[in-house]
Amino acid sequence: MTEQALSYVDTHFSRFVEELKDLLRIPSISTDPDYAPEVRRAADWLAEHFRKLGFLKVEVFETEGHPIVYAEYTVDATRPTVLVYGHYDVQPPDPLELWTSPPFEPEIRDGNLYARGACDDKGQLFMHVKAAEAYLKTAGTLPVNLKFLLEGEEESGSVHLAPFIEAHRELLAADVVVISDTAMFAPGVPSITYGLRGLAYVEVELTGPARDLHSGVYGGAVENPINVLARLIAGLHDEDHRITIPGFYDDVRPLTEEERRTFRELPFDEKAWMEEIGVSAVRTEKGYTILEAITARPTLDVNGIWGGYQGKGAKTVLPAKAGAKISMRLVPDQDPDDIVEKTRRYFEQKTPPTCKLRFTSLHGGHPVLVDTRHPAMQAAAEAMARVFGRRPYFTREGGSIPVVADFKRLLGLDSVLMGFGLNSDAIHSPDEHFGLDRFRQGIESIVHFLERYGQRPT
Amino acid sequence: MTEQALSYVDTHFSRFVEELKDLLRIPSISTDPDYAPEVRRAADWLAEHFRKLGFLKVEVFETEGHPIVYAEYTVDATRPTVLVYGHYDVQPPDPLELWTSPPFEPEIRDGNLYARGACDDKGQLFMHVKAAEAYLKTAGTLPVNLKFLLEGEEESGSVHLAPFIEAHRELLAADVVVISDTAMFAPGVPSITYGLRGLAYVEVELTGPARDLHSGVYGGAVENPINVLARLIAGLHDEDHRITIPGFYDDVRPLTEEERRTFRELPFDEKAWMEEIGVSAVRTEKGYTILEAITARPTLDVNGIWGGYQGKGAKTVLPAKAGAKISMRLVPDQDPDDIVEKTRRYFEQKTPPTCKLRFTSLHGGHPVLVDTRHPAMQAAAEAMARVFGRRPYFTREGGSIPVVADFKRLLGLDSVLMGFGLNSDAIHSPDEHFGLDRFRQGIESIVHFLERYGQRPT
Repeated sequence: MTEQALSYVDTHFSRFVEELKDLLRIPSISTDPDYAPEVRRAADWLAEHFRKLGFLKVEVFETEGHPIVYAEYTVDATRPTVLVYGHYDVQPPDPLELWTSPPFEPEIRDGNLYARGACDDKGQLFMHVKAAEAYLKTAGTLPVNLKFLLEGEEESGSVHLAPFIEAHRELLAADVVVISDTAMFAPGVPSITYGLRGLAYVEVELTGPARDLHSGVYGGAVENPINVLARLIAGLHDEDHRITIPGFYDDVRPLTEEERRTFRELPFDEKAWMEEIGVSAVRTEKGYTILEAITARPTLDVNGIWGGYQGKGAKTVLPAKAGAKISMRLVPDQDPDDIVEKTRRYFEQKTPPTCKLRFTSLHGGHPVLVDTRHPAMQAAAEAMARVFGRRPYFTREGGSIPVVADFKRLLGLDSVLMGFGLNSDAIHSPDEHFGLDRFRQGIESIVHFLERYGQRPT
Repeated sequence: MTEQALSYVDTHFSRFVEELKDLLRIPSISTDPDYAPEVRRAADWLAEHFRKLGFLKVEVFETEGHPIVYAEYTVDATRPTVLVYGHYDVQPPDPLELWTSPPFEPEIRDGNLYARGACDDKGQLFMHVKAAEAYLKTAGTLPVNLKFLLEGEEESGSVHLAPFIEAHRELLAADVVVISDTAMFAPGVPSITYGLRGLAYVEVELTGPARDLHSGVYGGAVENPINVLARLIAGLHDEDHRITIPGFYDDVRPLTEEERRTFRELPFDEKAWMEEIGVSAVRTEKGYTILEAITARPTLDVNGIWGGYQGKGAKTVLPAKAGAKISMRLVPDQDPDDIVEKTRRYFEQKTPPTCKLRFTSLHGGHPVLVDTRHPAMQAAAEAMARVFGRRPYFTREGGSIPVVADFKRLLGLDSVLMGFGLNSDAIHSPDEHFGLDRFRQGIESIVHFLERYGQRPT
């Protein structure tokens, strides 16, 4: 049954790519309310696709935000049930001028498919759809019971997903969650992610004078909110590049010696990594390697800053307002709500009497660690070993998939993070792309995984 | 002759306002190259206006930037010659949404004329045109020889003005320069400005990674250029709110005891000043009052900052670039070129190896002090005393008019800064306006000034 499915993948692969391109043409940007109709269009496209494949139960669920697509194919109550999670929304594409081809006009160059969402996550979720199709169109059935839960708000904080899961525990009941929204360790080096960082994302705005002022007439006595904001941001790190928010590290689980040894064994080429992103020097928290710092230690980054005049030439304004978006990546056992509150206190206490503070929590997510001995983790490892010719590494990733913590908390389910992206895929950046070789390897790995996990006793 | 001229002003005042509104409708924004045709339209409008008034020599001179309008009415070689300087370009009007009425659709509300440029400087330069008209249309002549030099690049650094002056020394030969581009000390409290701050305006841009990165995947090892920029900006002031750039204060002439006493005597209401701009606390350089800090001490303000994602919602980007516009107000005897170089060295030395610096000097201007005993200063003081019923104060202003230093350096001329603005006129801000009472008082003061200065032996 698996051989036939793999053969089907081979025969129909170029059509799979064309279908993915259709999905990528829909600009389903969830962070910008103006694109809400496009997000819905992507949801409807997927639901229609599942129906055509013969999924027995397909539904587009309304939420107070963007819709959730659910699809189900039940084979047999004695089989294990796999819940596939993915997201069909995408990041905003700006800055548009840095794209080689337009972000929503998919284009293949040198074996890579370029488009916003090609890798994150339309391309990766679609591999699961096509693996299911390969069984359904050959064997007429699946090795497991299969459920799809595809959301449209991952890039805007998955605000309505946890309530949905909570309200649909029975519908979503399963034995394990499988997610392809992470990266392989390196080209040709498969990996399964067992750790993810959490996230706390806030926005701060400082208001000084009631209106923009002339910097010549008022400069020297009216404290400038941009200068104040710079001071508050600068104060967030100390000389060792540690974060100064009081209590920030209180709940950080230290890396074990075993974990640090594994980190050292991973084939990580610091020089190549730096070259790929065009930096000639790095800065990590004192005492940690690059790989540790980007996957297993908490961080703080300003994601955006604004204030005053940004146009051409010189404008001598002393602005009324300045603002910034600031996010922190968290590690076990930090709690995003706790970190947001500690950050709020930092800004409240440091804002001088010359300015007023507006502090907003935009979203957060819990960090995750999964046991690598889980049967589905092992089945995934075997499946990937078949396709790639080598066993995957178990690794940690720096990004956040808050829903993984939700699945554990609300459904009691562990998640297998079998990702086929690469860090060089430029997700969240101009020229995002996905290698067609990895799109194919992903589908094949999932075909193998479904077979292997289906053979296990439930 | 003066009485007739004043009576003419009275009779024709409402037409003067309508003519000014026509000039204000032209969006002559010099900082934005897209508006170059509008800047030229304003120049042509003024030249045509001078011709209609019977000015004997009117010319629109080309420069490599925006044109310069010159107009001349020579009466008699034995009379003193007054050179009026003004600028017909305006600041950008953004943020547009904060204007009560559109910036280029002049509207009168409560006796104030609202429009970009109403006060700075179209309204003020136009007072000189109308005072000249009042004599020409009644006496058929003027009490002095009068020259107008009106530029279109004041708000973008007057780049081509000094070379023009240098190339036209003979044409511009005069006994004194008169400029109305400053503010009165307070409503009903006339003043003549004898000191102006200079300006050094720079732009810095930091580049970290070669492209925008995912803050989850790279955060913790790739130093964020926004965080670095915030650190460099924060480091520009110390605890006493003094500027830390090495050598910054080397050439600052200390305030004399006499000057500090005059500052204390001025009717300056700190509480009202703070209320007017909506701040509940100020921050000055340690040891200086508000008035000293905003007029007679050097400052540093960030006029604009940008980097990363500024849109709605949350984007988890670690940006490739961050930038800021930074300006310093200078006092005698600081030199703008010297300060720019010291600022460049600060940024070069503080930029860490994780980032690349691009440092650009946008423009600068020298600080100025004029002797209050100058005959034209005294004539102006007497003229304003006649109109306002009280002698004006001699004061210093925090803003910059770099051309004043150029007139001294290139033509050997002092400038009389008789301004009729108010600090509450919101120049450079939304809802810029000019009181029609001051527009009238300004014209009348100039009529008196021309008479009095014309009686003096040259």
